[in-house]
Amino acid sequence: MRVPYDEMVAVFKRVLLKYGMREDKADRAAHLFADASRDGVYTHGLNRFPRYIEYIEAGAIDLDAEPELVQQFGAIARYDGHKGPGNLNAEICAQKAMELADQYGIGCVALGHTNHWLRPGSYGIQAAEKGYIAILWTNTTPNLPAWGGKEPKLGNNPIVFAVPSRQGVVLLDAAMSMFSYGKIESYMRAGKELPVDGGFDSNGNITRNAAEIFKTSQALPIGFWKGSGMSLMLDLIVSTLSGGFTVREVGTVPLESELCQMFLMIRTDIFGDQETMLDKIDATLADMKTATPMKEGVAVRWPGEGMKRVRAESMELGVLVDDEIWNKVLAM
Amino acid sequence: MRVPYDEMVAVFKRVLLKYGMREDKADRAAHLFADASRDGVYTHGLNRFPRYIEYIEAGAIDLDAEPELVQQFGAIARYDGHKGPGNLNAEICAQKAMELADQYGIGCVALGHTNHWLRPGSYGIQAAEKGYIAILWTNTTPNLPAWGGKEPKLGNNPIVFAVPSRQGVVLLDAAMSMFSYGKIESYMRAGKELPVDGGFDSNGNITRNAAEIFKTSQALPIGFWKGSGMSLMLDLIVSTLSGGFTVREVGTVPLESELCQMFLMIRTDIFGDQETMLDKIDATLADMKTATPMKEGVAVRWPGEGMKRVRAESMELGVLVDDEIWNKVLAM
Repeated sequence: MRVPYDEMVAVFKRVLLKYGMREDKADRAAHLFADASRDGVYTHGLNRFPRYIEYIEAGAIDLDAEPELVQQFGAIARYDGHKGPGNLNAEICAQKAMELADQYGIGCVALGHTNHWLRPGSYGIQAAEKGYIAILWTNTTPNLPAWGGKEPKLGNNPIVFAVPSRQGVVLLDAAMSMFSYGKIESYMRAGKELPVDGGFDSNGNITRNAAEIFKTSQALPIGFWKGSGMSLMLDLIVSTLSGGFTVREVGTVPLESELCQMFLMIRTDIFGDQETMLDKIDATLADMKTATPMKEGVAVRWPGEGMKRVRAESMELGVLVDDEIWNKVLAM
Repeated sequence: MRVPYDEMVAVFKRVLLKYGMREDKADRAAHLFADASRDGVYTHGLNRFPRYIEYIEAGAIDLDAEPELVQQFGAIARYDGHKGPGNLNAEICAQKAMELADQYGIGCVALGHTNHWLRPGSYGIQAAEKGYIAILWTNTTPNLPAWGGKEPKLGNNPIVFAVPSRQGVVLLDAAMSMFSYGKIESYMRAGKELPVDGGFDSNGNITRNAAEIFKTSQALPIGFWKGSGMSLMLDLIVSTLSGGFTVREVGTVPLESELCQMFLMIRTDIFGDQETMLDKIDATLADMKTATPMKEGVAVRWPGEGMKRVRAESMELGVLVDDEIWNKVLAM
């Protein structure tokens, strides 16, 4: 089923208001959810909305809390998220990092004690559309085994890179597991096999079976030991700089709360050659598309390229929804 | 064969002096090469030394050039490497980024027009040993196909994360290809199969055959489309900020010269809780090691953990060398 974008925003907002969110905040949160689904990131749009409400009901999200500046040294600042809504906290801290970048060329905000930021790409897109380069990441609950071990000791810690281009935002939004749990869940729901190996089954064998991986919680890191190592580094950096919880510590709280996020922003206009920069980026994107396709007729795509098409389709025909989840939200 | 560390440094230095490098620079470069082999990174130590000399002979490395500050805005600076020796340029720029971090908490140097920096981890170790968090990366010549295409349009663009810990530097040094070309080459030399899939053979099938991948130049990105995307982002960021060459442009020059490197340094003492930070890091490293091993008796290792053992062994028994390459260098 497809739902008009404005209707989707209105429904999310109505539910958030009902659960006690302040009007301006409910409006922003509703847009962030709807934008994710509109752009094709269903796992962190509508599909995740019911869990957001559950977290509010459970008291894991404090609706009234806002990020607070704890300490600052030059271009880097530590914020305490006070368990506020993760998407709103993240949006505010991304903005603070851009303000630091305005002053120092580069700005860094490390946010601790916050909640899931929903769609990571949201804050990268906002920054790149304003001309910043963004590097952002979050830690998560333990959901990824360290390479060589069985129990999940690491998080899949998604990282976002966003760079402006004349053809739209070049956007990479990648978890350190081959597939995020949202993705694994949606393959499981659809009864489909993953397109490449995604984790371990209960016998310790590498598998594409989404349901098995969901059961073992043993997702495969990208590049085996490399993604495992990268996940560790991202966690150590963000948790120590923010003064928040490490993945290990997040694992000790009942819900996936107490997360940390990193917001690195860099201005692209400080060296006075923004047009040359954009030329370079365009030339690279164009060059990638000249490669002989692996699958005949399927040209190479740069990350973020598909988003514009999905967005246009959503705005024209309505946003694609999972009927069951949409009806669940309508009934809230 | 094993060679005493001091002898190795002396031999490298003698050859560099013979080729016209200034005494203090030859001393630093010789140490950086010997340190890489000493720590077990043979591909970027002794094994790469002959190519460094070839580059000097070909004029691709200008022995007298030094990185020059072109522009600075707050905590971010652009340097021109003037085609100086890549390892020395990188060491200087890492130092400059630490100085910016001293002042602003975070410091960023984007270096263009430089050469291969040899072992990427060197500059991360130096920084973390002084208490900084380091995030560093380089671009390379086109050596990695963008996901979905055949010809190499991307670089494998190694990235380094280094974080201090009480147990030594936690160090990740990872190319965006499953295996660096140095690694593929050494498996090929040894006639061994790669431990996991590493690229495409001439029929477009994914393979572990190192010689085939060396032939097709179609290495596999870590995490398939994810590593491909990450490689693109790293290149776009470093080339535009440094004002240097993109991977595509590097592909237009005869040797792998004209590279760009990024040096991001963050102080860990600015928020006054360095001991708490180190506690958090220790606890995470210790927790990883409590996981049930995938292979019985082989505990999980954190990135950088093995290095200390290899280093101690090298200092006690001598540095392990490929006899053929060592004799080649001795004859220089």
